Amino acid sequence: MEPNSSSNDNNKMQLQHHSSCLEIATMEVHRVVPPRHKSTIEKLKTRLKETFFPDDPLRQFKGQPLGKKWILAAQYIFPILEWGPNYSFKLFKSDIISGLTIASLAIPQDSSFVPPLVYTVLGSSRDLAVGPVSIASLIMGSMLRQEVSPTQNPVLFLQLAFTATFFGGLVQASLGLLRLGFIIDFLSKATLIGFMAGAAIIVSLQQLKSLLGITHFTNQMGLIPVMSSVFHNTKEWSWQTILMGFCFLVFLLLTRHVGTKRPKLFWVSAGAPLVSVILSTLLVFAFKAQHHGISVIGKLQEGLNPPSWNMLKFHGSHLGLVMKTGLITGIISLTEGIAVGRTFAALKNYQVDGNKEMIAIGVMNIVGSSTSCYITTGAFSRSAVNHNAGAKTAVSNVVMSVTVMVTLLFLMPLFQYTPNVVLGAIIVTAVVGLIDVPAAHQIWKIDKFDFLVMLCAFLGVIFISVQEGLAIAVGISIFKILLQITRPKTVMLGNMPGSDIYRDLHHYNEAMRIPGFLILSIEAPINFANTTYLNERILRWIEEYEAEENLNKQSSLRFVILEMSAVSAIDTSGTSFFKDLRKAMEKKGVELVLVNPLAEVLEKLQRSDDSGDFKRPDSLYLTVGEAVASLSSTIKAPSANYV
Amino acid sequence: MEPNSSSNDNNKMQLQHHSSCLEIATMEVHRVVPPRHKSTIEKLKTRLKETFFPDDPLRQFKGQPLGKKWILAAQYIFPILEWGPNYSFKLFKSDIISGLTIASLAIPQDSSFVPPLVYTVLGSSRDLAVGPVSIASLIMGSMLRQEVSPTQNPVLFLQLAFTATFFGGLVQASLGLLRLGFIIDFLSKATLIGFMAGAAIIVSLQQLKSLLGITHFTNQMGLIPVMSSVFHNTKEWSWQTILMGFCFLVFLLLTRHVGTKRPKLFWVSAGAPLVSVILSTLLVFAFKAQHHGISVIGKLQEGLNPPSWNMLKFHGSHLGLVMKTGLITGIISLTEGIAVGRTFAALKNYQVDGNKEMIAIGVMNIVGSSTSCYITTGAFSRSAVNHNAGAKTAVSNVVMSVTVMVTLLFLMPLFQYTPNVVLGAIIVTAVVGLIDVPAAHQIWKIDKFDFLVMLCAFLGVIFISVQEGLAIAVGISIFKILLQITRPKTVMLGNMPGSDIYRDLHHYNEAMRIPGFLILSIEAPINFANTTYLNERILRWIEEYEAEENLNKQSSLRFVILEMSAVSAIDTSGTSFFKDLRKAMEKKGVELVLVNPLAEVLEKLQRSDDSGDFKRPDSLYLTVGEAVASLSSTIKAPSANYV
Repeated sequence: MEPNSSSNDNNKMQLQHHSSCLEIATMEVHRVVPPRHKSTIEKLKTRLKETFFPDDPLRQFKGQPLGKKWILAAQYIFPILEWGPNYSFKLFKSDIISGLTIASLAIPQDSSFVPPLVYTVLGSSRDLAVGPVSIASLIMGSMLRQEVSPTQNPVLFLQLAFTATFFGGLVQASLGLLRLGFIIDFLSKATLIGFMAGAAIIVSLQQLKSLLGITHFTNQMGLIPVMSSVFHNTKEWSWQTILMGFCFLVFLLLTRHVGTKRPKLFWVSAGAPLVSVILSTLLVFAFKAQHHGISVIGKLQEGLNPPSWNMLKFHGSHLGLVMKTGLITGIISLTEGIAVGRTFAALKNYQVDGNKEMIAIGVMNIVGSSTSCYITTGAFSRSAVNHNAGAKTAVSNVVMSVTVMVTLLFLMPLFQYTPNVVLGAIIVTAVVGLIDVPAAHQIWKIDKFDFLVMLCAFLGVIFISVQEGLAIAVGISIFKILLQITRPKTVMLGNMPGSDIYRDLHHYNEAMRIPGFLILSIEAPINFANTTYLNERILRWIEEYEAEENLNKQSSLRFVILEMSAVSAIDTSGTSFFKDLRKAMEKKGVELVLVNPLAEVLEKLQRSDDSGDFKRPDSLYLTVGEAVASLSSTIKAPSANYV
Repeated sequence: MEPNSSSNDNNKMQLQHHSSCLEIATMEVHRVVPPRHKSTIEKLKTRLKETFFPDDPLRQFKGQPLGKKWILAAQYIFPILEWGPNYSFKLFKSDIISGLTIASLAIPQDSSFVPPLVYTVLGSSRDLAVGPVSIASLIMGSMLRQEVSPTQNPVLFLQLAFTATFFGGLVQASLGLLRLGFIIDFLSKATLIGFMAGAAIIVSLQQLKSLLGITHFTNQMGLIPVMSSVFHNTKEWSWQTILMGFCFLVFLLLTRHVGTKRPKLFWVSAGAPLVSVILSTLLVFAFKAQHHGISVIGKLQEGLNPPSWNMLKFHGSHLGLVMKTGLITGIISLTEGIAVGRTFAALKNYQVDGNKEMIAIGVMNIVGSSTSCYITTGAFSRSAVNHNAGAKTAVSNVVMSVTVMVTLLFLMPLFQYTPNVVLGAIIVTAVVGLIDVPAAHQIWKIDKFDFLVMLCAFLGVIFISVQEGLAIAVGISIFKILLQITRPKTVMLGNMPGSDIYRDLHHYNEAMRIPGFLILSIEAPINFANTTYLNERILRWIEEYEAEENLNKQSSLRFVILEMSAVSAIDTSGTSFFKDLRKAMEKKGVELVLVNPLAEVLEKLQRSDDSGDFKRPDSLYLTVGEAVASLSSTIKAPSANYV
């Protein structure tokens, strides 16, 4: 706008106030104009842009010098360049504690230290701790075992596993490159809260193995198998382990309590896990506790994991299976990784870019596959510990993998005395904090249906599996949306006394109906899924009106006004619905009037009708008020002397 | 309303005009009031009612005497009681012709004459001709063959087949009783046109068997297998058959042409198929043509099909398979039957009640299973012939089954000379008329995406199968809806000069922006699927505004007004989206204002926010006009002297 536009505007506003008084006198009405014509290509372009590039990544490049452009591009591809420069020692302090903490979890679990580094550079989540996840690993194992036995043919099995990991990464990365990140939007807040609580419980139950010192434990995830294997092996419970576990659990929970109560003493809760690892290790070492029924990590093979790109096989009879395995495990681990990422992002109120996440996790696995790593992703329990230990940025991943690397090379002997029970305690403390009961209650208060969704995610994760739990929750949420579309709201509008505003009669009691008019507003896009319903519903409105009309002999129905402001889109079923409706009304001697159809809708309506009914000025108005005013002047009924 | 309401209204209207002038002077604004509180149960009740009983079947019963009520109830359950009473001889004339015509098709195909009678009583479609459909039969056969061989153990096989039919019917009927009929709404007009054209081509191709006199013919439906089996058996082609077929085809097409050109001569095209059947039979009989390479129906076993309820087995080892078979074939045949029903309903512009259809087809199969009938449904080719022969009501089904019955008992000898080629010709003539090119072109003109859907249905049906074709089309249509939800429209509104109306800036060029205000209207329900997008999009609108602002130093952004009239629903993700948005804006020193949130949305928003921001009067307005007017009075900027 030109600089002095504001003053113009004042004049405009004043002028407007005058004229809107005039307008009522002279009943000057605004016309609905057909929108500027757009070619199909144009439309397609905008549609695609909004679908795949809603964040308009190139926007920031506009009008920048070339050098700046390069920097921006680099920052876009490598998020680390965004937050790296203003990374401070303060942040590093929290990151190093959390990094060491998750390292103490990582060392016994696996020795993949390259993927975390990759993620640090590419990832957009601050709390995600990278590592293998049991579900994906289990599935990969069982799928490959169909064709190759890991015992009889270990080398080939390894080759297939790495190749599958490679394909998995490829799938994940390409999903991101195809800008399909918006798929993760279907993980609603409710779903995530349910998922989180469920996963927390599952993970805690898994820890019963180490907390009770059970040696023969199921490797299934479900509630039932775990509990059964807990209570079928009661004789394996070791009181020493339970005692030690209990003590450290109390210690950890207390420190966490202090940390949450006194934000100043945050370092207490942050440091506690690491302290307990060291402490417990020393205890075991001092009292030779490993000989008294307390299981320790023990000897792990030393040395880094070797490069393995020479082990990737892209030929041979097993390729089909390998690709299938890669696809499935890839998608499964992606879902979990992204769910975890979003969960913690929601906790700290920041956004994760779905596309970047997918690319990051994908590349990380592609690289991992050539450094002897199975498929990795954002691991829930590990991220929970990371978050709980106060991680601020992805640097904690770097700390973790450096620690892991150093340990693998030199410090293995130190860790062999670390008791598993403490690691269990650390994980439990971290995850139980993620069961967010207040949020659940809030959801129940606001939206019962969302609560149902949350419940499904929760129970699904506990009793079936993480993926199916999520799938069910998402399925229900989508079903709800479809239901809203199939049964759109139609609201009867009435006039707000002393104005030309028209609003819902049931919401605003003072709103009054206008005899001879039936004013409905349709609250959804009109398409194949709801035309049948809308047809029935509107005819029902009319019948009801006529029934009343006969009861108290009010002036008969002359006009049905459809307020279309909320009809954001229409398809061919919709256009023919309007034709049929108009026919049906003409039979009844009622006239159909549309108010404020949006550009796209108007265009399609006019293109669809050959009779030109939707071009007649007296069947299209810009506001309900103007429609009523100008139409009522045409009525011969008592309401003729309106104007 | 009370009798004299109309006069009241005049006063009201006049009063209104005064006051709306006043209003501008005194800037009296309307408040957004919280809606009347409704209990969860109440809401659930209305929601369920609108979902499952949108036609409000009990409405017509209100205030009727008991006797009348019974009649209405009977009519509701048995549609025949609705149209039966005013059934005329004129209608019967057309029905008997079409009935005899489809009978001539039915006799060689099958001998199930009970289901059509059932459908006549319960069904709500006028053109549906009942019979077995090849796909369902094929699937049932192949599924049962997994456990029982029809050759080695024919009796058991029959038992299983009938029992499966029974279960199929049960599934179909219960779908209807559970009021899930709205599922068929997902078959859009575009889908049906594509389906119809595809099915027409498939069916015509099937007729090449009889038209070319091929004896060894594939029993697959796809385009490729059929064509290959046509051209691999060229030596089986019989010129006599081809000649005869060609003549009758020409005759039938000519008569149909006449019938369509001259509506008065409709009886010509209607009678033609029957005439050709009789004529051809006589010809064959006269010239002993069956010995000259023209295949005839030949001897069929006489006699009615016996009752078979004693053959239903609800126990034994095969029960599982039987139930599975019933479920699958039941749903498959239901899809086709309902698709066919809707197709012809769309052609003649009348509604079919999905629930009634499901119940009718279900009961028909339950009854059929106890009268030695396999699963039946609305058969496409047969219904096409029925429609083409001018059927007016379901009575044509009665005529058909009576004819079939009589023939089975006494007239079989007559029919054994009927040449298959003529039946083929009749079917082809009927179905080619259903390829609706103008409609396809119309769809292309109005909505490219619907055209894509249509194309998928068409190609899917031709190259894959009827069900998968339909499935693909429905899948794409649903995907489109989801896309509309995930990427809702947000439109920037401007003021229409000389009024307090606000409309899309891009649609109405005269609409003008108001400095200091960003007025956006959101065009979709706000839920988990689009909160991320909306958040990004709105912040982008703001950034763009600020960018411009710096360019031409217009007054800085003070208020973001969200026009919520089109937001029909919201969930917990939505409510927390608003909280986050408000936070983000406060950081920028911009105020968030909502205009006309609907009852449900307002309720949830207010329940969700503890800060009470959404209760403050100056953050809720009833119209954009009032919001702008009353807010601009608060601005210190040049636009202060608005009012």
